[in-house]
Amino acid sequence: MLFGKVRGTVVSTRKDASLVGIRFLLVEELDSRFGGTGRFVVTADAVGAGPGEVVLYASGSSARLTDVTKDRPVDAVLIGIVDQVDAEGTLVYDKAAPGGDPSAQARPR
Amino acid sequence: MLFGKVRGTVVSTRKDASLVGIRFLLVEELDSRFGGTGRFVVTADAVGAGPGEVVLYASGSSARLTDVTKDRPVDAVLIGIVDQVDAEGTLVYDKAAPGGDPSAQARPR
Amino acid sequence: MLFGKVRGTVVSTRKDASLVGIRFLLVEELDSRFGGTGRFVVTADAVGAGPGEVVLYASGSSARLTDVTKDRPVDAVLIGIVDQVDAEGTLVYDKAAPGGDPSAQARPR
Amino acid sequence: MLFGKVRGTVVSTRKDASLVGIRFLLVEELDSRFGGTGRFVVTADAVGAGPGEVVLYASGSSARLTDVTKDRPVDAVLIGIVDQVDAEGTLVYDKAAPGGDPSAQARPR
Amino acid sequence: MLFGKVRGTVVSTRKDASLVGIRFLLVEELDSRFGGTGRFVVTADAVGAGPGEVVLYASGSSARLTDVTKDRPVDAVLIGIVDQVDAEGTLVYDKAAPGGDPSAQARPR
Repeated sequence: MLFGKVRGTVVSTRKDASLVGIRFLLVEELDSRFGGTGRFVVTADAVGAGPGEVVLYASGSSARLTDVTKDRPVDAVLIGIVDQVDAEGTLVYDKAAPGGDPSAQARPR
Repeated sequence: MLFGKVRGTVVSTRKDASLVGIRFLLVEELDSRFGGTGRFVVTADAVGAGPGEVVLYASGSSARLTDVTKDRPVDAVLIGIVDQVDAEGTLVYDKAAPGGDPSAQARPR
Repeated sequence: MLFGKVRGTVVSTRKDASLVGIRFLLVEELDSRFGGTGRFVVTADAVGAGPGEVVLYASGSSARLTDVTKDRPVDAVLIGIVDQVDAEGTLVYDKAAPGGDPSAQARPR
Repeated sequence: MLFGKVRGTVVSTRKDASLVGIRFLLVEELDSRFGGTGRFVVTADAVGAGPGEVVLYASGSSARLTDVTKDRPVDAVLIGIVDQVDAEGTLVYDKAAPGGDPSAQARPR
Repeated sequence: MLFGKVRGTVVSTRKDASLVGIRFLLVEELDSRFGGTGRFVVTADAVGAGPGEVVLYASGSSARLTDVTKDRPVDAVLIGIVDQVDAEGTLVYDKAAPGGDPSAQARPR
């Protein structure tokens, strides 16, 4: 799975019939510091994510293993909203912190 | 799924027998500003897209999950025509606008 | 699917038993102008392509959906020989033209 | 499979229901000298790996072939902890050596 | 399929139970001139390849289509040992030649 940030939504009226009712999100791939890479993927949404949320998405045939996407022609699905990421024993992402940056919490304002 | 723009069509007479009747479209991958990247993929067409349309296409085994492509040896299928894309609360693509650029609508001519 | 040009053949005597009888072709990936990229893939051949022909090949699990490759451990298969490619209403590849270049036909010699 | 190093863990509370109980690890891809590449992937954990361990992970549909990940929407799974890697007849990685570097064992301190 | 050269072996004691008995090889991807690219992949071995041999390997779900790898969580398998490669009517790789280079055979020593 890769980290992404929900940037927006995609509307398609004329589409494969099996896709009716699926919500398509515009997701930007994130780098190791949770910054945007400028590369985008459109994912189906299996968890009800909102704009700005850092998420995990799965690609390929695995994208069809959620209830929302089963047997549908989608190759990417948002499977979870990220709460916290720990690296080398340090919290490097915390959804509850400003901008997701744990160190930002400790900074004086 | 990725965004692409339909650039043309591909004709193949001698092909795997299961592919007879499938329409092959030449699709250019788009960057985050909906500009062409110069990279092309040939997709099966499940929605009846026309030249110049911005589309969503799925890759891999998911490309075989439409009625058109079921059990056929194709690894990319056009699954939807894009009407609108919203990013950070702003409309960044609108099929109804000139060139798909929503800001172009407001410009004097 | 991607465009490729058949460059040669690959002989492997010691191989997985299920691959006996499959013809392996050396295929060079092509860029958007049908020039070689220097990147090669080895594909199974489902259509009887010959050297120098511009072809379409499918990758991944879809490569196992032809009669030739069914249930075999191959991840790329040549599925069609390209006759013509139209882009933006202009013929950009024509198998019948010298070097596949439609504009070459009109040139004086 | 690719080599990776376990860097940390990822916590997601709101996720696809089928993912409850799966442990998500933050894994950095390694280069040929077992150094970090700065590229990260989030994998399910099928072997109980710990931070700093060099591991093998599988991607795509194969990521669903472990007992832990069967039928779940994951596209990467950690399948083994690497003990030793031999290249050209030389031990190039040894878990038991300091930093995994076999030549480090012989160096005077 | 891609060309690779067997560079070594990988030992993993703690691994998914289904992988016991599979031999893991360290394979370097080759460029179009059969030189190393510095990129490595770890493949299961379905043919009994030895160090230094030029091989074909398949990736993705197709890697599970050999007897050795059936239903196991592997995403790359070595499916054949390359004997000869012909490009544009010229032998460009010959296992029997020194270093695999056919032109090397004709050189005086």
